[in-house]
Amino acid sequence: MFIAEYDIRVRYADTDQMNVVYHANYATYFEIARTEAIRSLGFTYREMEAMGIEMPVTEIDMRFLRPARYDDLLKVRTTLRHLTANHRIEFLQEIFNEQGKLITQGRVTLFFLDKITKKRSTMPWQLREKLLPFFPEVS
Amino acid sequence: MFIAEYDIRVRYADTDQMNVVYHANYATYFEIARTEAIRSLGFTYREMEAMGIEMPVTEIDMRFLRPARYDDLLKVRTTLRHLTANHRIEFLQEIFNEQGKLITQGRVTLFFLDKITKKRSTMPWQLREKLLPFFPEVS
Amino acid sequence: MFIAEYDIRVRYADTDQMNVVYHANYATYFEIARTEAIRSLGFTYREMEAMGIEMPVTEIDMRFLRPARYDDLLKVRTTLRHLTANHRIEFLQEIFNEQGKLITQGRVTLFFLDKITKKRSTMPWQLREKLLPFFPEVS
Amino acid sequence: MFIAEYDIRVRYADTDQMNVVYHANYATYFEIARTEAIRSLGFTYREMEAMGIEMPVTEIDMRFLRPARYDDLLKVRTTLRHLTANHRIEFLQEIFNEQGKLITQGRVTLFFLDKITKKRSTMPWQLREKLLPFFPEVS
Repeated sequence: MFIAEYDIRVRYADTDQMNVVYHANYATYFEIARTEAIRSLGFTYREMEAMGIEMPVTEIDMRFLRPARYDDLLKVRTTLRHLTANHRIEFLQEIFNEQGKLITQGRVTLFFLDKITKKRSTMPWQLREKLLPFFPEVS
Repeated sequence: MFIAEYDIRVRYADTDQMNVVYHANYATYFEIARTEAIRSLGFTYREMEAMGIEMPVTEIDMRFLRPARYDDLLKVRTTLRHLTANHRIEFLQEIFNEQGKLITQGRVTLFFLDKITKKRSTMPWQLREKLLPFFPEVS
Repeated sequence: MFIAEYDIRVRYADTDQMNVVYHANYATYFEIARTEAIRSLGFTYREMEAMGIEMPVTEIDMRFLRPARYDDLLKVRTTLRHLTANHRIEFLQEIFNEQGKLITQGRVTLFFLDKITKKRSTMPWQLREKLLPFFPEVS
Repeated sequence: MFIAEYDIRVRYADTDQMNVVYHANYATYFEIARTEAIRSLGFTYREMEAMGIEMPVTEIDMRFLRPARYDDLLKVRTTLRHLTANHRIEFLQEIFNEQGKLITQGRVTLFFLDKITKKRSTMPWQLREKLLPFFPEVS
């Protein structure tokens, strides 16, 4: 299992007139945290795109439990439970506020696609290699 | 059952460098279509907020089946299957492209909350009255 | 002189916790209105990109005079004073609220660029031809 | 003169189909950098709002000189040249890329407003006190 955490500060632009973070912006927070989770492994999503693999989001489920407000420093935890061998990868993502309370949780599925042909692909070995130590059950 | 449809033009700002609509923006498209669905009944979400009821999104599930591109004219269909009697309301939402293909589908749950106390509330009777003719099974 | 008007409804997502439209979103409103101004001529910005010309914004000045609120129906007036002969085009843009009051005004400069080489280009003749009748002083 | 710098990573959501940061997002980058400039002084914009002062943007001028791309780490420099004594404050803001090249420059004017009455106000003394050491010419 691979777990990474990343802190995100709520921007003024992210709020709406309910004085809380507009719900769609959590999908962006999730994406930033996935990007940083990959960077923490010593690889970047940018490099992956440069190698010809893109990762569109194909499914997202989000539960909004508590509101977040302007200037809050949120902690986003990104968990990869299974090291996929095919075109589909699923992340669990949770957001905590400064009091450590869970405010949002989500499940995000992405596909590995060839950038040119748009055909299904698999995780580049450069990323797989970085993830393998976190999945001792995969030989 | 109540069904409403609303057309949304994809803005340049909504695209990302994959040349498609960035996934989080579909949550905003859904919200616009819900707003317009209520307006088509002769009521507005703005009036509801002015009356002291707000409707935060508490859950959203989205499936992205096909991409949408800049300047596409999308049709968003909003369906209310059940006329809720409590604080929770659920919409089914589907987005079709100009070829009539389903590109995104979602399920969105919102709560009726008292704007001041943030306590659970119910649908204002002014909206319920407008919806009743679509639900003959509710007496 | 070419003038076009387009109505834009303020989205919930466009507001911030001051209960008004977040200032950066006016730049997006301007862009939508420019897109629709071109469409009203019988040409589209999408076609222009497909022809290999892109139009990045190089300068924008905005004055925010009055606030706009959620669900307001704003009128954006786009004015082209001069039919450019080079790579640079400048639009004046004004936004009015439902009471006809000017709420935002701006000046936006864009460049015509070759999409591949990123070199300066000029307005495609297909668009110029549509604009010429509005500029009788240009022979 | 008060100068502060803050690094911002370009999000996927910030790009558009020209593969660069969508121009309106620079206004948001500027705002984040102003927020962090104030925080670096030991005060926060959130506290100011809690004290009943809000700061709407009333003017913004931006020049886009070079593009920024996904995952770029941008440096935003925020400069306050004059310590205002009235309701109006003006910041100069510049964005540099990882090669140190200036990519965007702007001038942003904000008003100090009473949050309730919406009347013009002045900078809270709590912030003025923090800024004074940077303006020895002001006695």
